[in-house]
Amino acid sequence: MDKLIAQLGFLLELDKLKAILRRTRPVGLDRYENTAEHSWHVALMAMLLAEHAEPPVAVERVVKMLLLHDIVEIDADDTFLYDEAAAAGKADKEVAAAERLFGMLPPEQAREFHALWREYEERATADGRFAYACDRLLPMLQNLANEGASWQENSVRFEQVIRKNLPINDAAPALWQYVLPRLEAARDKGWLG
Amino acid sequence: MDKLIAQLGFLLELDKLKAILRRTRPVGLDRYENTAEHSWHVALMAMLLAEHAEPPVAVERVVKMLLLHDIVEIDADDTFLYDEAAAAGKADKEVAAAERLFGMLPPEQAREFHALWREYEERATADGRFAYACDRLLPMLQNLANEGASWQENSVRFEQVIRKNLPINDAAPALWQYVLPRLEAARDKGWLG
Repeated sequence: MDKLIAQLGFLLELDKLKAILRRTRPVGLDRYENTAEHSWHVALMAMLLAEHAEPPVAVERVVKMLLLHDIVEIDADDTFLYDEAAAAGKADKEVAAAERLFGMLPPEQAREFHALWREYEERATADGRFAYACDRLLPMLQNLANEGASWQENSVRFEQVIRKNLPINDAAPALWQYVLPRLEAARDKGWLG
Repeated sequence: MDKLIAQLGFLLELDKLKAILRRTRPVGLDRYENTAEHSWHVALMAMLLAEHAEPPVAVERVVKMLLLHDIVEIDADDTFLYDEAAAAGKADKEVAAAERLFGMLPPEQAREFHALWREYEERATADGRFAYACDRLLPMLQNLANEGASWQENSVRFEQVIRKNLPINDAAPALWQYVLPRLEAARDKGWLG
């Protein structure tokens, strides 16, 4: 019963992720999306697009990683990908957040979930790299469908987008080949600086 | 490429689930939760609590089911569990929604995802029953942490809660044993009619 109580304490703590806002708008909605709904979207994305991973991945591991990947934002908040100043200190805050949050779990499960989170962060495995590729691609697709709204609001430059998202090509070249010409078109339309 | 374009069309259609509101509030937030963030929460819940399933389940299948289980609400909207009037017509609307949404996918994937959704709906397998049990338990835990807010606002009665949630006991008796005395205490505190 103690074990279950620890698990349910963690479960309710997760509700806080629904209050963390990102810079991306869901297509058709006039508000920012929060990290919890984003985490659902990107986990389902991995399940949808796993066949495009090169090398192949264990989709169930990728899905688990993506369900967990952003929970550290409960303590560390969301950091906008293109905000280079905010990126300083991000890693330390997230490491501390992971210690606290996974530390709420029974020890064996704490180790398992913490290891999945680290694997996502380190991107040293095919599963971790594909999870990261999904997380990079999704907001670009939303921005392309929103006439580059988040890029324009935050003065994001084409070169930044390419540099930050090129890791997609290492995990799923077909997805990068899909998005690259659309990014070039977005630049030509003035959606990217 | 046609296949990928179909998959990405489905992916962006999913953004609409972020606009569908439920009657439950995330703990600590003064707003209703939407179905997308709920879907993340309940999928992670299954991963967290799978050891309590009896009989055992294939957790990766349960997680996939839960990522998909509510996407039909994009067309059919959320139906409050205790609104017996609204329940009429719900099944037909959801079946039509599933046809349309899964129909956006490449045929093989459409079949796979549609079958997972049906398995959740039918609850004829241990995986489907455990997925359903998680979906029932989570809003009760949120309500218990919120002093029964959603129950009180909607005049929900103790007997309704027991009747609608008893299937938890068929899939995860330990979870039902945890929650039942807490529901009785909630009734005694006047949080349930």
